[in-house]
Amino acid sequence: MSEQPEVRIEPMVRVDLDDLIRSVRAIFSACGVSDKDALIGAEVLAMTDLRGVESHGVSNMLRHYVDGYRTGLHNPSPEWKTVRETAALAVIDGDRGLGLMQGPPAMQQAIRKAQEVGVGIVTVRNSGHLGAAGHHALLAAEAGMIGVCMSGAGPIVLPTFGAEPRLGSNPIALAAPAENETPLLFDVATTVVAINKLANARRNGLPVEPGWIARTDGSPIMEHVPVPEFGDFYMLPLGGTREHGSHKGYGFGLMAEVLSSFLSGATPIMLGQTDQCKHYFAAYDISAFSDMDAYRHSMDEMLRMLRETRPAPGNERVLYPGMLEREAELDRRENGIPLHRDVIHWFEQMAMELSTPRLVTIEKPA
Amino acid sequence: MSEQPEVRIEPMVRVDLDDLIRSVRAIFSACGVSDKDALIGAEVLAMTDLRGVESHGVSNMLRHYVDGYRTGLHNPSPEWKTVRETAALAVIDGDRGLGLMQGPPAMQQAIRKAQEVGVGIVTVRNSGHLGAAGHHALLAAEAGMIGVCMSGAGPIVLPTFGAEPRLGSNPIALAAPAENETPLLFDVATTVVAINKLANARRNGLPVEPGWIARTDGSPIMEHVPVPEFGDFYMLPLGGTREHGSHKGYGFGLMAEVLSSFLSGATPIMLGQTDQCKHYFAAYDISAFSDMDAYRHSMDEMLRMLRETRPAPGNERVLYPGMLEREAELDRRENGIPLHRDVIHWFEQMAMELSTPRLVTIEKPA
Repeated sequence: MSEQPEVRIEPMVRVDLDDLIRSVRAIFSACGVSDKDALIGAEVLAMTDLRGVESHGVSNMLRHYVDGYRTGLHNPSPEWKTVRETAALAVIDGDRGLGLMQGPPAMQQAIRKAQEVGVGIVTVRNSGHLGAAGHHALLAAEAGMIGVCMSGAGPIVLPTFGAEPRLGSNPIALAAPAENETPLLFDVATTVVAINKLANARRNGLPVEPGWIARTDGSPIMEHVPVPEFGDFYMLPLGGTREHGSHKGYGFGLMAEVLSSFLSGATPIMLGQTDQCKHYFAAYDISAFSDMDAYRHSMDEMLRMLRETRPAPGNERVLYPGMLEREAELDRRENGIPLHRDVIHWFEQMAMELSTPRLVTIEKPA
Repeated sequence: MSEQPEVRIEPMVRVDLDDLIRSVRAIFSACGVSDKDALIGAEVLAMTDLRGVESHGVSNMLRHYVDGYRTGLHNPSPEWKTVRETAALAVIDGDRGLGLMQGPPAMQQAIRKAQEVGVGIVTVRNSGHLGAAGHHALLAAEAGMIGVCMSGAGPIVLPTFGAEPRLGSNPIALAAPAENETPLLFDVATTVVAINKLANARRNGLPVEPGWIARTDGSPIMEHVPVPEFGDFYMLPLGGTREHGSHKGYGFGLMAEVLSSFLSGATPIMLGQTDQCKHYFAAYDISAFSDMDAYRHSMDEMLRMLRETRPAPGNERVLYPGMLEREAELDRRENGIPLHRDVIHWFEQMAMELSTPRLVTIEKPA
C-alpha cells in the first residue's frame, strides 16, 4: 500500500528553494503586497512545497492568490486590527489580507501570550486562504510550544446525509516539538481527501477512489472515475459514509468552523454574509504545564515507539505525522523541489505579465 | 440508511432517571466513594444514558468502575492536587480518582479561569476513565461557553499500517451553546467506531461492518463477522484504511494524546509507565471573543441551516451533532431509560452484594 496514495507527482522539473521564494516574493510584490508580507507569503508557500505538501504549495494555490489580488478579494495592504484582547487571547480583523501571510504573525502573537500565561489563543476573521495550517502550527513547535491551527472556509463539503454543501474542507493541524526525533506535525483536511489533492490527481491523470467524493445530488461515488470538473461534485467528510463514521469527519469540520468563525466574532461562509475565511491559532507553553526535559524525553520515546511499531502484512513501516514531510524536506533541500511543467509554464507567463524574474529550473541528472 | 447504524438496543426494560441516579450513587457509595463524588459520578453516567449514549452509560461502564474500585485501580477518596497553575491553566494530579467524577470539577475550574482571562485550560493526569467526554464539554456550554474535552487512554488502536496497538480510542468532544436551537454537542471516539459500541453490538447479536476493526496481525477485517472476543481484534482509526484517511483518524487520536498526556506532565499509556488515563478540558468564554447576542443569533442560524439541508437520496433528514442526543433525552425523560435485561440482572446482583436499593423498573405500555 502506498504511503501517499493520492499524490503521485511526476517530478519533471526541479527548482531550488531560494529561487522559488525569490520568484514567489516578486509575484506577491507585483500584486502590491508589502516587502515584509511578500517574503512571509513566499516562505510559507515554498516551505509547504519543500515539505512535499504539494496540495497547498505553489502549484495549486499561487494562481488563486494572484487572481484574488486582481479581483479585489484580497487586500494587498491590510491593516492588522485587534478587536478584543486579554492576557490569554486576541481577536484580529484581518482586513481581507491573505491568511497565508497573516498566519505567522497570528501564531507569533499566540506564542507571546503563552509565554505570559501558559496558553495563547488568537483568532483572525475577515482573512483570505490560510495556506497549510501545519506550517503555522509548526511555528509554535519551533518556539518549544505545542501549536494548534484550524481554519473555516467553504462551502464545498456535504454534511452526513446531505445534498447541499455547508462546510469548507476546514483543516485541523497540531505540531509538537521533540528532542532528537522529527517534530510531530499533523495537518489534515476534515474531508476524506483534501480538494487540492484532487487537483493534483487530475493534473496527473489519476482517478478518484470509491467513497472520496459525492455526486451533486449527495450520493457518494462508489467507483473509480476520472476527477470530475469542479462544480460537478461535492466533498465528503472524513469517514465517507455514515457506516464508516462520516458524522465524525463532519463534526471535526464543525469544530474547526466553531473555533475559527464563532470565536473570531464572525459567521461561517455557509451563511453567505462574506466569502472571507476565519482562522484559529493556539500555542501551549509546555514549560508552564510540565517539566520541559521530561516532556522532550517522553515525546521522543513515544515517537520512536510509533515508528518502530511492527507493520501489518503488506506494509513496510509505520509512520507518525511529520515523518514524510521531513523526508521530503531533506530530499528537496538537496535535489530541488519538483514542479509539474504546467506550473513552470504558469510561472513563465507570470514573469512576462508582471515583469518579475524568471524561475530558474535545475537540470535533473538522468 | 439508519441514523445510528451501530446502536440498535432493544429497549426491553425502562427505568426512571432519578431511580437510576439513586441506584448508581448507592453503588459508588458502597465502593467507598464520598457522597459528593458518588452523586457527581451517578449523574454523569445516568445523564449519558438519558442522552442515548449507551456506549458510555451504565450498561458498559459501571461494572468496570466497580471492578476498578475493588482491584485498587481507582482510588475512592482521591486528593485533588494542583501541580501547576497560571491565570489561564491548571494541571491536576487526580490521585487515581475516577475521571467520571473528576471531569466536572476540572471543567468548572476551566470555566472559572475563562471568566477571568477568556480561556481556561485544565489537564488531569493520574486519573481513571472519563466517561462521556461530551458530558463535560456540555458543562461549559451550559455556562454560556464553548467547551472542549479530550482524553488519552488505551492502547487498543492500531496506527495506520501498524500491527501493534498504540493509542486509546481517545475521544474528542466540543459543545457550543445556541439561543433556541439544541446546543451543538460533538463527542466521538477517534476510531471508526467506539469500542463500547462493539460491546452493544455483541449484546444485541449484530455483526461488525467491513473496515471497522482489524485482526491481531493488523489486517483490516473487510467482511461482516460476529464481534470477536476482546483481545482477538484491534481497533482501526477513523478512516479505516490509508486510502480512506485512517492517517487522519490516527492523527486525531494523537492530538488527544498529546494535549491530555503531555500537557498534564504525564506519559501516554503506550509507554507502559502507568495504566492511568489523562484528560484535557478547555473552556472559551464567548463574550471575551465576541458579542454574545450576535454569537447566539449566528449559531442558531447555522444549526438551523444544517438541519434544513436537503437530504441526499435515501435519507430522511440531515442532523447536526447533538440533535439525536436531545431527542433521546426528551423521550427518556418521558418514558424512562431503556436498559438490556442483562444490565438489570447485573444491578440486581450488585444490590444483593452491596446491600444497596434495588433498581426500580417501569412496566412499558404495549
